[in-house]
Amino acid sequence: MRVVVLLSGGLDSTTVLAQACAQGRECFALTVDYGQRHNAEIDASKAIAEQLGALEHRVVRVDYGQFGGSALTDDSIDVPNANTRDSAIPITYVPARNTVMLAIALGWAEVIEAQEIFIGVDAVDYSGYPDCRPEFISAFETLARLATKSGVEGKGIGVRAPLVEMSKAEIIRLGAQIGVDYKLTVSCYQASSDGRACGGCDACELRREGFATAGIDDPTRYF
Amino acid sequence: MRVVVLLSGGLDSTTVLAQACAQGRECFALTVDYGQRHNAEIDASKAIAEQLGALEHRVVRVDYGQFGGSALTDDSIDVPNANTRDSAIPITYVPARNTVMLAIALGWAEVIEAQEIFIGVDAVDYSGYPDCRPEFISAFETLARLATKSGVEGKGIGVRAPLVEMSKAEIIRLGAQIGVDYKLTVSCYQASSDGRACGGCDACELRREGFATAGIDDPTRYF
Repeated sequence: MRVVVLLSGGLDSTTVLAQACAQGRECFALTVDYGQRHNAEIDASKAIAEQLGALEHRVVRVDYGQFGGSALTDDSIDVPNANTRDSAIPITYVPARNTVMLAIALGWAEVIEAQEIFIGVDAVDYSGYPDCRPEFISAFETLARLATKSGVEGKGIGVRAPLVEMSKAEIIRLGAQIGVDYKLTVSCYQASSDGRACGGCDACELRREGFATAGIDDPTRYF
Repeated sequence: MRVVVLLSGGLDSTTVLAQACAQGRECFALTVDYGQRHNAEIDASKAIAEQLGALEHRVVRVDYGQFGGSALTDDSIDVPNANTRDSAIPITYVPARNTVMLAIALGWAEVIEAQEIFIGVDAVDYSGYPDCRPEFISAFETLARLATKSGVEGKGIGVRAPLVEMSKAEIIRLGAQIGVDYKLTVSCYQASSDGRACGGCDACELRREGFATAGIDDPTRYF
């Protein structure tokens, strides 16, 4: 079965791709370059797609950072340290990012006649980002059925978010079992161009805690 | 009220922008350059946004044509003549195009705190394109509420498709009443770089018939 897997180069989406490949799906990896600061993610995604055996890997550039509104795309907004995080929607939220990424994935899925789209949103993300919640994923699946030729013809395109109920530690344990090399992945919101992590941002802290809780050595390279 | 208006440079979206401006909305025009062949549309959209008084006009490039699958983005597929059109979904359908465009509009709407997104789909289009149907628009509105910070906070972003039940002739009559200069608009699927139309494609035929039925002079410049 052909599937499109959204691959950011981070820990979650890499685990999703590894699992989909391990389950015997024909994986077409898709990275959306939306003008994020951390371009190291794009390089990481290329190495990961190749290592995991994706049949194809595409990078689609969306000139989206011009809107600003997020610390991840707007240079005038600082990436906050983990200790400044509160329960509100964080400033690292990129407006409608997952909607844009799923929409582009949907277009490719239609062209290559893929039956499923995979996205690596997880329970930790969705405490803060509205477009990581299960009800968002489900609404996108409904939209996908109405939006597409294949949907009209009765062959819907499923949207799968297999990590949606998992903690970071559970994701890391799953990945370790199926042989994911997390050294290749980049989670840091302000990674260096060669993929080293700051260790201080929200994403770094969640990742570090995940490895610690999972009891698995953290291969992250820090500044 | 701030609104984002998707503007392709064609007849429909120009009418939508003119109407939204005439109704006193603060219009932010958005053109998505998805690698369509007819780049004359992009130039037209700039002139139209300025003439109609949009507060801002952004062109967002999505490197989307690389997927192919449509005569509008894939050079290896010919744009059909109007007389080869049948009732099936036409080859000029761009996979998930309206989903991608609405997703990008949603991101901008969130950043500028717009309350509505306008899209110029119409009844003629939705006989062939799945992502022009009223049920698609409605599903996107549901998604938008779940996808965004403003939706979570109870201020949804409305998705308006004011032409959705209108014929081409009705749209042209409406536009003529509010002073739209259709000379600026480009509908042709294979327009020349200076915006002249082929006269033979599906889009040209629909447009010409629309002016004829409306009893309004057709200002289109042909090859």
